Amino acid sequence: MRFFSDNAAAAHPKVIEAIAASNRLDTAYDGDAWSQRLDSAFSDLFETQVRAFWVTTGTAANCLALAALCPPYRGILCHRDAHIEVDEAGGPGFFTGGAKLILLDGPGAKVTPDTVESACNSIRDDVHQVQPAAVSITNATEYGLVYRAGEVGALGELAKRRGLGLHMDGARLANALATTGDSPADLTWRSGVDTLSFGFVKNGGLNAEALILFRTELADEIAVRRKRAGHLLSKGRMMAAQILALLEDGLWLENARAANAASQILAKAAADRLTQPVEANEIFLRATDAEAAKLRDVGFDFYEWGPGQIRFVTSWDSDSRAVEQLAAAIAAL
Amino acid sequence: MRFFSDNAAAAHPKVIEAIAASNRLDTAYDGDAWSQRLDSAFSDLFETQVRAFWVTTGTAANCLALAALCPPYRGILCHRDAHIEVDEAGGPGFFTGGAKLILLDGPGAKVTPDTVESACNSIRDDVHQVQPAAVSITNATEYGLVYRAGEVGALGELAKRRGLGLHMDGARLANALATTGDSPADLTWRSGVDTLSFGFVKNGGLNAEALILFRTELADEIAVRRKRAGHLLSKGRMMAAQILALLEDGLWLENARAANAASQILAKAAADRLTQPVEANEIFLRATDAEAAKLRDVGFDFYEWGPGQIRFVTSWDSDSRAVEQLAAAIAAL
Amino acid sequence: MRFFSDNAAAAHPKVIEAIAASNRLDTAYDGDAWSQRLDSAFSDLFETQVRAFWVTTGTAANCLALAALCPPYRGILCHRDAHIEVDEAGGPGFFTGGAKLILLDGPGAKVTPDTVESACNSIRDDVHQVQPAAVSITNATEYGLVYRAGEVGALGELAKRRGLGLHMDGARLANALATTGDSPADLTWRSGVDTLSFGFVKNGGLNAEALILFRTELADEIAVRRKRAGHLLSKGRMMAAQILALLEDGLWLENARAANAASQILAKAAADRLTQPVEANEIFLRATDAEAAKLRDVGFDFYEWGPGQIRFVTSWDSDSRAVEQLAAAIAAL
Amino acid sequence: MRFFSDNAAAAHPKVIEAIAASNRLDTAYDGDAWSQRLDSAFSDLFETQVRAFWVTTGTAANCLALAALCPPYRGILCHRDAHIEVDEAGGPGFFTGGAKLILLDGPGAKVTPDTVESACNSIRDDVHQVQPAAVSITNATEYGLVYRAGEVGALGELAKRRGLGLHMDGARLANALATTGDSPADLTWRSGVDTLSFGFVKNGGLNAEALILFRTELADEIAVRRKRAGHLLSKGRMMAAQILALLEDGLWLENARAANAASQILAKAAADRLTQPVEANEIFLRATDAEAAKLRDVGFDFYEWGPGQIRFVTSWDSDSRAVEQLAAAIAAL
Repeated sequence: MRFFSDNAAAAHPKVIEAIAASNRLDTAYDGDAWSQRLDSAFSDLFETQVRAFWVTTGTAANCLALAALCPPYRGILCHRDAHIEVDEAGGPGFFTGGAKLILLDGPGAKVTPDTVESACNSIRDDVHQVQPAAVSITNATEYGLVYRAGEVGALGELAKRRGLGLHMDGARLANALATTGDSPADLTWRSGVDTLSFGFVKNGGLNAEALILFRTELADEIAVRRKRAGHLLSKGRMMAAQILALLEDGLWLENARAANAASQILAKAAADRLTQPVEANEIFLRATDAEAAKLRDVGFDFYEWGPGQIRFVTSWDSDSRAVEQLAAAIAAL
Repeated sequence: MRFFSDNAAAAHPKVIEAIAASNRLDTAYDGDAWSQRLDSAFSDLFETQVRAFWVTTGTAANCLALAALCPPYRGILCHRDAHIEVDEAGGPGFFTGGAKLILLDGPGAKVTPDTVESACNSIRDDVHQVQPAAVSITNATEYGLVYRAGEVGALGELAKRRGLGLHMDGARLANALATTGDSPADLTWRSGVDTLSFGFVKNGGLNAEALILFRTELADEIAVRRKRAGHLLSKGRMMAAQILALLEDGLWLENARAANAASQILAKAAADRLTQPVEANEIFLRATDAEAAKLRDVGFDFYEWGPGQIRFVTSWDSDSRAVEQLAAAIAAL
Repeated sequence: MRFFSDNAAAAHPKVIEAIAASNRLDTAYDGDAWSQRLDSAFSDLFETQVRAFWVTTGTAANCLALAALCPPYRGILCHRDAHIEVDEAGGPGFFTGGAKLILLDGPGAKVTPDTVESACNSIRDDVHQVQPAAVSITNATEYGLVYRAGEVGALGELAKRRGLGLHMDGARLANALATTGDSPADLTWRSGVDTLSFGFVKNGGLNAEALILFRTELADEIAVRRKRAGHLLSKGRMMAAQILALLEDGLWLENARAANAASQILAKAAADRLTQPVEANEIFLRATDAEAAKLRDVGFDFYEWGPGQIRFVTSWDSDSRAVEQLAAAIAAL
Repeated sequence: MRFFSDNAAAAHPKVIEAIAASNRLDTAYDGDAWSQRLDSAFSDLFETQVRAFWVTTGTAANCLALAALCPPYRGILCHRDAHIEVDEAGGPGFFTGGAKLILLDGPGAKVTPDTVESACNSIRDDVHQVQPAAVSITNATEYGLVYRAGEVGALGELAKRRGLGLHMDGARLANALATTGDSPADLTWRSGVDTLSFGFVKNGGLNAEALILFRTELADEIAVRRKRAGHLLSKGRMMAAQILALLEDGLWLENARAANAASQILAKAAADRLTQPVEANEIFLRATDAEAAKLRDVGFDFYEWGPGQIRFVTSWDSDSRAVEQLAAAIAAL
């Protein structure tokens, strides 16, 4: 019974069907009928004109987005625990050509206006120190917390005032939206987000993520950078088809709600052990080595998140019986 | 009736089946059961121990391979018409960190020992001129010609003597093997090839190519570079499954033979118009604008390859009736 | 008697004096009194507001200038014989983060509107092929030819029409100006030049070159890129002082005239052997191996420029007797 | 009376003389007689065969050295206050092609085996996290502390055990050697240092620093990287001549002793205000804004090092009367 990560979950059957359905000859790359529908599908969802690009990984989406916001000789403010800092093998350095990640502290991997201000103020405004060009936040965060529209808006205003771009790593944006009830527009561009990595792979997709540009003037550059990085697949229709299948009838939101609901069941069972509020589909809890071993012994798989802490992640297809069993096992520790 | 390129062909039904069959929870990235079988599957095929990596595009395979063979401050010898030079948006420069492509001339996009020698000899051995570190050849070439084992071997010996790595862009290696009858081993590592981009997408795959390292000591570096470039997909099992499906029972070779056979039918019909020998699945022929228009008018789609020349590409699933119709139409011009 | 290159000539005594005179405590980097005068000194010379940066090499000046005109994912049109292509060890690839040099042909290392147009037209306007962002020309060229204001202007108009930046590698701009009699303004920004590497080291300087920005909005970026590349020296006053010494009373132009005059003496003597017109301070001539050996035997040092051709370069301090002797020796061949 | 930094001090008169004396025609770049003596001069000093390169800045020396020790996809462990992190505008990211600086804490900007071990242990050994390839330490540190041979040796052993390169930023190595009395060999390669930035500019030089390779097999790569970065000056003889002048009769050590001695005078006067031990030529002390203002009012120039702390730096030519006056002024606060 795996609760290791949502990134290894199965793809939704409708996604596989969509792939099969698009498996016929069409124009290569993103000239096909499916890919051509992406811009309008996301423009509808976000209630504004956007440009949307499929890519195969969150790392690609994040790094392409950052490269468009930050020249090689500047920096990107992000949380010390941000995925771009700790889990992308230095991808931002590669894609930007050597830009620097400027790390912020704070609980729950959340970036706040205060930490951004403070970091900016500590940088001398001269050519010797790397000047920031962008802020990147993750929603839901690497600790499963969500930013609500107001919080993003405060960061967006600050970014604008300081001339910084704002990127959102939305690998689990669906889960955040399911929790906050905010509209996609409110949680993103209306709050100042310029570029968004919109995650589908952790939420029922197979290997298609979406990179959304609210600043549409970046699209030409992104299109070239995507190709140059080897991320322009020739049978793009099977990429777009996945995303369209998940967008249809709000399947993506339904999936996220299912994952979140499963997490709430675990959160209740682990209430006195939680090290972070459970706001999306990740549960962090205190557990001794012995307790962790006990859970493993009865067949649960999870992540040891540093000493004395373990992490469970639920997904769109988390088996409800497994969730109940795990909840019981945690409660019984 | 599309003969524009093989890169937009449908995926083979067995590939789609394999994806569906692997669509269940497993370890993420390439820790899954399918990915773990790749090394041995390709080691069997190549009759030597290799390391094999799935990636989503030929550009990614090529550029990763080149980055491992060439430091940022050196160069890669390739043909002026090589895909890495003309169709990858500068990807080699991006992945290597600024290495230079040193361009060679010659008919049919073929690299020869003579052109390599001559280019090397024209470079002053000092710090002012970029020194070559590798040679890259495409088999079958961008003009549909094949290198036979002896030809590759001559290049391999030269590369070794000069301390150059040898990369093969095998986007259509299957077609070359189908033509030459060489064994995969003979056409690659036994002839001195160090790294190979083994194409599957043009040959029945959906979005999985294989990067094969005959110099297995490069594997650790490649693994990190792949991740860093955003090319380590979390549901890697659906990548490996595609390739394994094509390797099984020689489906990949069967597909290539079908494509080549279709091209031979067209070649015969266009015998007096061919601008290149037809050795794989591409046909280049002379055609006036009026002739090209005539073919388009009756429903054929193809590539205008510079003035007075058009290109047809057949694929594993080229419809035999369409091929016959096209052959007739060409003959009737 | 060395006629190998002007780049190894001595520095002018006034330059050494200026260094010594500026050798007292002042603000570090370019905050000192000398560096602070550069902008206005060059603005006067060019009759428009410019931003001027000292750097230690022409390679640094060229590559910084190009990095500001061309993003990593685009290309720079230049002549196949351009210094940036053949003698900077791939520096443009390094500084731009992997941009491509797109090579043009033509006699005398000269770029013409025709070759630029033709190269641009041969590039498909899609994401697969690298799109140009800038043109770089060398004045005087690597073969000692000069562009006159009208010629630069034609390139400048074309560049503007196509949205390309225009960079001039003016390692020997002084020699070109001495020949053409054009004003510095006419030969550069009034003809559409955006960024200029203005050479002083070959013309009496020690190790200070000037990077001139006619598009002053690039100055902030250049300042950071210069620092980041390790080119912001702490005792910048000794850099600026060199340049100011050469600008004073037109010493730079006087030096260039002396070098050009020496070349004209050689040109006359070699009139029937010249492979290029002599328009600046370089002489290219036909010479058999035996003839070259004869010149060496009597003590002349020069560059073997490919088979059957040799190159002499005169400089500001070419000894007049040595020049006469060389002229006689050439005439006597 | 400037105590802002030693980087803006005058060059030693013998350095200016050496420049003037080398100002005659010789082979360009580093083929001249002076440059050719560098290897043996430094090999003598370090009692082992080394390769030595002149460069114009410490940033260039550091970044070239790091690029040779760390591939683009790995990281360099250094102190959070290291010059390479806070004062080189992201140069390491540029020169390495995107490698990551992994920051260590600890008093006085000193790196210890414990902090290195701890940082290494916190990095998961997988492809998602950036793996370290090198350690960089600054001697004397950015807070004016020195590493003694034993301390470097402990780091050297650890680096070797973990397969990490060891770089020393010796912008003020002369000051460190003057303090510790260690031999240059003991403080560097005998303690495991692989590459050394040996500073001369802060110690009487004009614009020549030395990059010393104890791993001489890196020399070819460094030579190319130096050229490619625009750091191969054509009149290299004036670079080498500076360094040779400072090496002669131990002038470099004499200069460093003078700077250190001046600092000790200040240190005594400020004994109860010191925030760091004074081990080289930098003095950090507590001072209120009012106190700092008082010192400025009587003509002293210095650096405000964060709130409540100021920094004085002495140099080889610190005026002894000014030092006494400053000492008195500090004591009188």
